[in-house]
Amino acid sequence: MIDLRSDTVTKPTEAMRQAAFDAPVGDDVYEEDPTVKKLESATAEMLGKEAALFVTSGTQGNQIAVLTHCRPGQEVILESNAHLFVYEGASMSAFAGVQPRTIAGNHGAMDPDDVRAAIRPEDIHFPETGLICLENTHNKAGGKVVPLENMQKIYEVARQHRIPVHLDGARLFNASVASGVSLKRYAEQTDTVQVCLSKGLGAPMGSMIAGSAEFIQRARKWRKRLGGGLRQVGMVAAPGMVALTEMVDRLAEDHIHARTLADGLGRVKGLAIEEDVETNIILVNVEQTGHDATSFLSELEKEGIKAVKFGPHTVRFVTHYGVSGTDIRTVIEKMEARFG
Amino acid sequence: MIDLRSDTVTKPTEAMRQAAFDAPVGDDVYEEDPTVKKLESATAEMLGKEAALFVTSGTQGNQIAVLTHCRPGQEVILESNAHLFVYEGASMSAFAGVQPRTIAGNHGAMDPDDVRAAIRPEDIHFPETGLICLENTHNKAGGKVVPLENMQKIYEVARQHRIPVHLDGARLFNASVASGVSLKRYAEQTDTVQVCLSKGLGAPMGSMIAGSAEFIQRARKWRKRLGGGLRQVGMVAAPGMVALTEMVDRLAEDHIHARTLADGLGRVKGLAIEEDVETNIILVNVEQTGHDATSFLSELEKEGIKAVKFGPHTVRFVTHYGVSGTDIRTVIEKMEARFG
Amino acid sequence: MIDLRSDTVTKPTEAMRQAAFDAPVGDDVYEEDPTVKKLESATAEMLGKEAALFVTSGTQGNQIAVLTHCRPGQEVILESNAHLFVYEGASMSAFAGVQPRTIAGNHGAMDPDDVRAAIRPEDIHFPETGLICLENTHNKAGGKVVPLENMQKIYEVARQHRIPVHLDGARLFNASVASGVSLKRYAEQTDTVQVCLSKGLGAPMGSMIAGSAEFIQRARKWRKRLGGGLRQVGMVAAPGMVALTEMVDRLAEDHIHARTLADGLGRVKGLAIEEDVETNIILVNVEQTGHDATSFLSELEKEGIKAVKFGPHTVRFVTHYGVSGTDIRTVIEKMEARFG
Amino acid sequence: MIDLRSDTVTKPTEAMRQAAFDAPVGDDVYEEDPTVKKLESATAEMLGKEAALFVTSGTQGNQIAVLTHCRPGQEVILESNAHLFVYEGASMSAFAGVQPRTIAGNHGAMDPDDVRAAIRPEDIHFPETGLICLENTHNKAGGKVVPLENMQKIYEVARQHRIPVHLDGARLFNASVASGVSLKRYAEQTDTVQVCLSKGLGAPMGSMIAGSAEFIQRARKWRKRLGGGLRQVGMVAAPGMVALTEMVDRLAEDHIHARTLADGLGRVKGLAIEEDVETNIILVNVEQTGHDATSFLSELEKEGIKAVKFGPHTVRFVTHYGVSGTDIRTVIEKMEARFG
Repeated sequence: MIDLRSDTVTKPTEAMRQAAFDAPVGDDVYEEDPTVKKLESATAEMLGKEAALFVTSGTQGNQIAVLTHCRPGQEVILESNAHLFVYEGASMSAFAGVQPRTIAGNHGAMDPDDVRAAIRPEDIHFPETGLICLENTHNKAGGKVVPLENMQKIYEVARQHRIPVHLDGARLFNASVASGVSLKRYAEQTDTVQVCLSKGLGAPMGSMIAGSAEFIQRARKWRKRLGGGLRQVGMVAAPGMVALTEMVDRLAEDHIHARTLADGLGRVKGLAIEEDVETNIILVNVEQTGHDATSFLSELEKEGIKAVKFGPHTVRFVTHYGVSGTDIRTVIEKMEARFG
Repeated sequence: MIDLRSDTVTKPTEAMRQAAFDAPVGDDVYEEDPTVKKLESATAEMLGKEAALFVTSGTQGNQIAVLTHCRPGQEVILESNAHLFVYEGASMSAFAGVQPRTIAGNHGAMDPDDVRAAIRPEDIHFPETGLICLENTHNKAGGKVVPLENMQKIYEVARQHRIPVHLDGARLFNASVASGVSLKRYAEQTDTVQVCLSKGLGAPMGSMIAGSAEFIQRARKWRKRLGGGLRQVGMVAAPGMVALTEMVDRLAEDHIHARTLADGLGRVKGLAIEEDVETNIILVNVEQTGHDATSFLSELEKEGIKAVKFGPHTVRFVTHYGVSGTDIRTVIEKMEARFG
Repeated sequence: MIDLRSDTVTKPTEAMRQAAFDAPVGDDVYEEDPTVKKLESATAEMLGKEAALFVTSGTQGNQIAVLTHCRPGQEVILESNAHLFVYEGASMSAFAGVQPRTIAGNHGAMDPDDVRAAIRPEDIHFPETGLICLENTHNKAGGKVVPLENMQKIYEVARQHRIPVHLDGARLFNASVASGVSLKRYAEQTDTVQVCLSKGLGAPMGSMIAGSAEFIQRARKWRKRLGGGLRQVGMVAAPGMVALTEMVDRLAEDHIHARTLADGLGRVKGLAIEEDVETNIILVNVEQTGHDATSFLSELEKEGIKAVKFGPHTVRFVTHYGVSGTDIRTVIEKMEARFG
Repeated sequence: MIDLRSDTVTKPTEAMRQAAFDAPVGDDVYEEDPTVKKLESATAEMLGKEAALFVTSGTQGNQIAVLTHCRPGQEVILESNAHLFVYEGASMSAFAGVQPRTIAGNHGAMDPDDVRAAIRPEDIHFPETGLICLENTHNKAGGKVVPLENMQKIYEVARQHRIPVHLDGARLFNASVASGVSLKRYAEQTDTVQVCLSKGLGAPMGSMIAGSAEFIQRARKWRKRLGGGLRQVGMVAAPGMVALTEMVDRLAEDHIHARTLADGLGRVKGLAIEEDVETNIILVNVEQTGHDATSFLSELEKEGIKAVKFGPHTVRFVTHYGVSGTDIRTVIEKMEARFG
């Protein structure tokens, strides 16, 4: 099987397993695990923030950000197809009691003027705007890199209104590798940021949130409430450290594979690439094959290929370190043979 | 002052005050107030539902509907400019823990296909769609009547997916009077409905929610939790009964006034009517006068006229029984004199 | 029927109805109702607080206090049998997301040392103590007056820990009349206070919350979210004003009636008065009659008398202005005839 | 340092690290991790339930149970010192919107009659009783085993009222080893149960919840909302499997150590054992040493011994596999030397 469903399917490398095996550990609820502390300070350093915190998933990191920044009855501005809105089970409303206010973006980037217009003035009828959330790269937009300038302009608007900004950077490493803009430059445009170790970087689990020391201290308590306070967390932080130090640069390869795959699939009869490929995500419209997404995925499966549905006629492919150049060629050949 | 800010500014009529004075009352927490019981059964009858419940406001009625229909972590589909989303302080997220999923409508009416597409399939990442909310007439759309056929189609979609439908009918009386479609016909297209006694109908306070007997029984408890369980409620239910029985038909007059006002203002230099007037709401774009909404309202105030801001350059006027034909002419004349 | 179930069953007086009939009104969402403003400033004055707010019920007032003082994940210290804990449908947890921490009191008064011990130190596992709630008179304790000194000591503890104090004073007027301690003296020992107009004072509906101007401003928004933002609220505020100005002193009569009733019932075979009567509530243990509370109430009903169950063998009687001295004698005679 | 603070400080064994290193893994959000599946079915089997789910902590397991069993506005009956009430940051109120109703137990066991009396009848003022929670062994009661018969009686009461029962079995393995009652027998007395892998069993992290297949399916979604949906979870499930299969029986040794320690400390001047030791927890009252808990812990620390504060003058010691018989003797000797 060539598994292109998500970069979350990546399995830990030998080095990660070895790191887990060797990791010095302690009870992190008492803040005594040396491995997670090392990972947290390395992440903070890398993102240019005062402090960072290990969390069990990107969803947990995002939810902790919302819980820590907001109060119930507030509104959170975010892009219409943001992961936080689409894929997190309405947790921000269920747990933090806040209402999402969505803005349709352009390739995942909200227009700063739209953001400004969506900020609520004080009025007895209105929720207060409590947070602005960005996502970079933007998954539903096809792995698009949200431009640094866009983030800068939105952050300027936010600061004028004293509203915090959170960045869902589950794939910020991909953005940085693709754009050449450092993680720090991106993170400078936000108050807090979440980055995933378990997507392209291949760690078995875990994400990091970073921000001010005061924010992270409060976030730690919300993490405990969510059940994310772990004990000998070094066992999973150690592979995360490998992910952070050894796996970032190789994302460039995934991006090349993605473009190769997009080029190849774009030549297959009936397939149309919906978005220019900038990172490791390819959105393919399959309508002209006569299939809808579901039946197309069944066809793929028969050929030993996995992808996921992303719309009625849209299929998403994601490249990652578990997929080789040979795999990419195989996929293209099989698709050409099947539909071409 | 000619007060065109909202039909909520209407003051109780002499008949309403007399009804309050005369009302037989009891403790409604013990369900012993005869006046509110009469009002509740009259409302249920009028709307063709099994039961109805007096609530202190439209917001409370809508929130009780959400609380009674939904569970935390669910999603509620509603129009982008619905009152429930824009004007209720994010209460549905703060109290019921549900996430709004907005759809941009056409004159307040959501496309049934958009509704269908917004319903969530079962997936570990997705909230469940717990409710669809409609609003008729649609306030932000300029008092537009949402067509019965549109409601029918949406209800069909909802039933196919076993999702309940709630109608925010704060101004459903206006819709009915304007369209000639009975309240019952509208209410048939929803599981529950909220209608306001304190807008065009002029009661001092209160709204009604109606639905199945089982729904109303559960709603009663959520009303108590919200602090809406009242004692000698007959004192305010009695004016509500007058509103329901004596004040509906005269809404036609408000609609005539609104059209007259719109025609007149439309001829004033620099003013543009944004939406065809169907009921008692007029949205006026003031941009060509060189004013924004806020400064335009100051000018109006100097002329003894009140309206409200509805957008950066949009001003809303609402006609109601406290505004006479003479008032309408005065407003037009003053505007012509000032800008014409 | 002689109705001793609760002082909530009191019906509005002629003066209250007349006041409603005559009340100048306006739209209170725009803060333009002169009658409610008058009531709010009279209440603030009477309680010695900067500002006050009309709410539709005691439950709403208490819930608004919790919502305004607290954040989710906090803990609220209150007496084990407090109305807020026992009778408000777990609203404080459902809406404000806070956890009650109960302390068994002595006749409704918590020991200040117990309060101190219940305050949470900072710890990653612990909720923060967000609020301390008192209740005076204490309903479940049989209408007991919580001594001013007790309140003072608890307030001292609270201030040392910078924790706000809210007083559920649904029957604070009874406490004041019984003890001779002014409302202001009581209210000085708390940051916020709620008093009911619709219990012994006989208004048809409504309560007041009072506190700092800043608190009331934020409370106003929570009231709107709960659906308690009303329009021509003067219609119900006017009777409330009558309640506040004309009905307080006569509570002394209810207290005399209560003691008379307790003395009489205490002599009836099989009945035992559970608590010394200090205000208008009498708790009667009926176990020795061979009845449980439910069957005893049926017997009462046959005699034309109503009371409520307050425990397996406990029945509560409440005196109020709808109950005369003759009624009291009738009840005693009938009980003597039936059980004596 | 001899670390007797908690059995959570146990470090993973060599076998656990090797198991992590070797574990076959997959993406568990897609339910494709073979190692966690094996752990889940082994746990379900061991507990006699249809299904089980890996969660990141005991707190997460408990919170998922509350979220899955309850609706906002309900009440949860539990012991006054239950972990769920004392140590989980008021999460059950913050996230699930439910109100705890505490009952003071006898050595951690609630009287079934008290439970019955605490169940709410239907009433407009009352929350509905949505769940009963037990804890076995009971941490705050000093590691006491709640007797099976007590659990049986409470479960009988619960079933009569159709209320689900959840068991916080963070240390259920200790209860089983100490009492000789099988895990299954205990789990039969509850609908759902949570057991920790990371306490006495020594796994680096993780707990399991078990119940009906339908319950676990719904729980899986709440876990995702909390951010507990992990990817290559086999890396931590594998040590958990070692914990479950190799580490249970050796808890007997911890219990012997605990009794030895209690006997020894009981002979030290000024120290008093507060509760008979049944499992691996010892509560020591230090008041007669002239120290409070905090200063006593400082003294301990100087001697190279760690424990935790459990009350103003109460210190908790916990034995676990990281503490040897020699360590126990050392602690006793040092205490005798210091205080004896």
